Amino acid sequence: MTDARKAALDYHAKPIPGKLSVELTKPTATARDLSLAYSPGVAEPVREIARDPENAYLYTGKGNLVAVISDGSAILGLGNLGPLASKPVMEGKGVLFKRFAGINSVDIEVNAESPQAFIDTVARIADTWGGINLEDIKAPECFEIEQALIEQCNIPVFHDDQHGTAIVTAAGMLNALEIAGKSLDSARIVCLGAGAAAIACMKLLVSCGAHPENIVMLDRKGVIHAGREDLNQYKAMFAVDTDKRTLDDAIDGADVFVGLSGPGLMTADHIRKMAPTPVVFACTNPDPEIDPELARETRPDVIMATGRSDYPNQVNNVLGFPFIFRGALDVRATRINEEMKVAAVHALKDLAREPVPQAVLEAYEKESMSFGPDYIIPTPVDVRLLERISSAVAQAAVDSGVARKPYPSHYPLATVDDVYGG
Amino acid sequence: MTDARKAALDYHAKPIPGKLSVELTKPTATARDLSLAYSPGVAEPVREIARDPENAYLYTGKGNLVAVISDGSAILGLGNLGPLASKPVMEGKGVLFKRFAGINSVDIEVNAESPQAFIDTVARIADTWGGINLEDIKAPECFEIEQALIEQCNIPVFHDDQHGTAIVTAAGMLNALEIAGKSLDSARIVCLGAGAAAIACMKLLVSCGAHPENIVMLDRKGVIHAGREDLNQYKAMFAVDTDKRTLDDAIDGADVFVGLSGPGLMTADHIRKMAPTPVVFACTNPDPEIDPELARETRPDVIMATGRSDYPNQVNNVLGFPFIFRGALDVRATRINEEMKVAAVHALKDLAREPVPQAVLEAYEKESMSFGPDYIIPTPVDVRLLERISSAVAQAAVDSGVARKPYPSHYPLATVDDVYGG
Repeated sequence: MTDARKAALDYHAKPIPGKLSVELTKPTATARDLSLAYSPGVAEPVREIARDPENAYLYTGKGNLVAVISDGSAILGLGNLGPLASKPVMEGKGVLFKRFAGINSVDIEVNAESPQAFIDTVARIADTWGGINLEDIKAPECFEIEQALIEQCNIPVFHDDQHGTAIVTAAGMLNALEIAGKSLDSARIVCLGAGAAAIACMKLLVSCGAHPENIVMLDRKGVIHAGREDLNQYKAMFAVDTDKRTLDDAIDGADVFVGLSGPGLMTADHIRKMAPTPVVFACTNPDPEIDPELARETRPDVIMATGRSDYPNQVNNVLGFPFIFRGALDVRATRINEEMKVAAVHALKDLAREPVPQAVLEAYEKESMSFGPDYIIPTPVDVRLLERISSAVAQAAVDSGVARKPYPSHYPLATVDDVYGG
Repeated sequence: MTDARKAALDYHAKPIPGKLSVELTKPTATARDLSLAYSPGVAEPVREIARDPENAYLYTGKGNLVAVISDGSAILGLGNLGPLASKPVMEGKGVLFKRFAGINSVDIEVNAESPQAFIDTVARIADTWGGINLEDIKAPECFEIEQALIEQCNIPVFHDDQHGTAIVTAAGMLNALEIAGKSLDSARIVCLGAGAAAIACMKLLVSCGAHPENIVMLDRKGVIHAGREDLNQYKAMFAVDTDKRTLDDAIDGADVFVGLSGPGLMTADHIRKMAPTPVVFACTNPDPEIDPELARETRPDVIMATGRSDYPNQVNNVLGFPFIFRGALDVRATRINEEMKVAAVHALKDLAREPVPQAVLEAYEKESMSFGPDYIIPTPVDVRLLERISSAVAQAAVDSGVARKPYPSHYPLATVDDVYGG
């Protein structure tokens, strides 16, 4: 067994299995305490919630509780290993929810025979939580599942593999283009990959100002063009009228490459053909579409991001989902809509343009970091993320009419100190 | 608002809503920690579980995690108030699981249009947990739901309103009869009430040695006898060939009265007609079938138990379910079978016959307590419960062939110190 493998298994197994526990937040020492926590005292909040369901947010943990739900059909890059095998990932997501945004979470592994069975199952139990994070569900089923649950539930339902990736990518992209002296509304974009994350990324870039006719998306069969008859409805949204057929055709003169496909699929020849100051987001993990060293060597003017923590500009979902849910929960949003996603993009983008706190420099053992080609996205250790992203998302929820709770005058409810202080 | 009502609502609302939180059990301070908790390290336990599902017990929280699941159709004595209104009770059950047996729990409120929909929903997500505690589901649906889930799930499924009550009642009953100089196999038993708890109590008394022909059960319409044609299959199991029709008929000469019905339904005349040293379990809460003072006044020889904490001999489910699940989880039992329930009965019964620890005396502010008419059931503050009940249940699981894990040589895995020490 390799050291890395042993360390990972030991971390999960010792001294007790797993990574999370459920703890008491109220006194339970005396018989009186227990008579309040359970019978007979518990009858009072029961009656209050029966009178008005909104009271569940006052008397139970619902308002700070997110379910992380998967069917295990697309676990990390490992494929369809079934619901139970996804449990360590779902619990890991719970670790990140707590660690970064003070959110309690529970994981639910669903063994469903069809997307409809998955939808029915989750819809029937959704009232239990304040929000639902869907995770590691394969395309195209994930689109149908998310859409149906958004419609049927009165709480945010958010498939992080799609939108989390899209939000962080879009924020980095806006900054990369700014540095390259270009703008999203005229950028020519090539997206290699047409899975859930790729489609969500391109949709969000359009919401942020990109023009659909400037986007060329490729799946395993090549360019997604208007003449193809093998496209599902999700890919078809990106079919363009073009005679380009391969990545080699599409990349010629492109300003932006987004890779959500497979390792090594972009060559030196490809990057050589891109426009001046090319922007390359090679996000496949652990081995990106093009090795960052090779990219830099071939095109010294490249602005590059990857999914890796050992290179600059990591596209890391943890920059998004904990804070997006924090903002949504704090104003009891009924959903996470496009306005809230765009607000998160701009808050992330703006934060990268501010001076970097000393604590971040220390964590990365650097003397200086500043907005530029090697710093277009904030780092996960930046404690400002919580206030900035959460409050921007909460404000967007209020402004777009999906908040069920007035915007608190003392926002954010969860301050950096609340979450990191304990 | 009354003081008691305000105290209960404040307890639930302040300083944060609810009673439970999810906390981290592993280090998450550094980037390396996070790379073990989540990507890329988390891929290792994923692969191990895909290889052998049993590994979920080694690398995730599954083995110490119980779901508390309700549809809110029979919340406490309040009736059908819907799933969401049951949430404070389910979270309260979670408090008791943690406080008494160190078990993590999550609550699930199910909004199902039929028993079959409830069953399908829970069966699809059951792999998430190590066990399922069903709660506050009305009869007769609860029987069908529990039976189907027991058959479909590979983990213990236990409807506590039925079996928890039955186990504690049976333990107290065996002790009461011992003190009265009688035995269960010849006792004449009257059960007022024919709901889920009543039926489970009578079934378990039969498993412990009572004779079905000595049991007379009454529902709202009177004695359940062989001539009635309005009985569901669950009540029909207790139909006897008798010409008794009312409680007044049935109670004449009875040794035992078990009340799981409604307040004040037993009169002084009823108790007067019982056999010498009558055993009366008047369990309806908060107002029992007969006031304990009136019972004692009418029959000074009565041995009495109630559901109340302010009288001796409280039939309290918390004496059962935390420890029963602890034992079942510790040997990875596939179910909680009759043998395990009977083992819990005898362990509880036996514990009441031992000397009472000083800490219990102090908690109850008494100079002495000992086995006798006013002490037939252990108290919830007795820390010996954890080891005694859990190990008896675990041993019974092993002996009856439903344990999937060898009996640990250093049993119990969860010692009193583990649970109460922290």
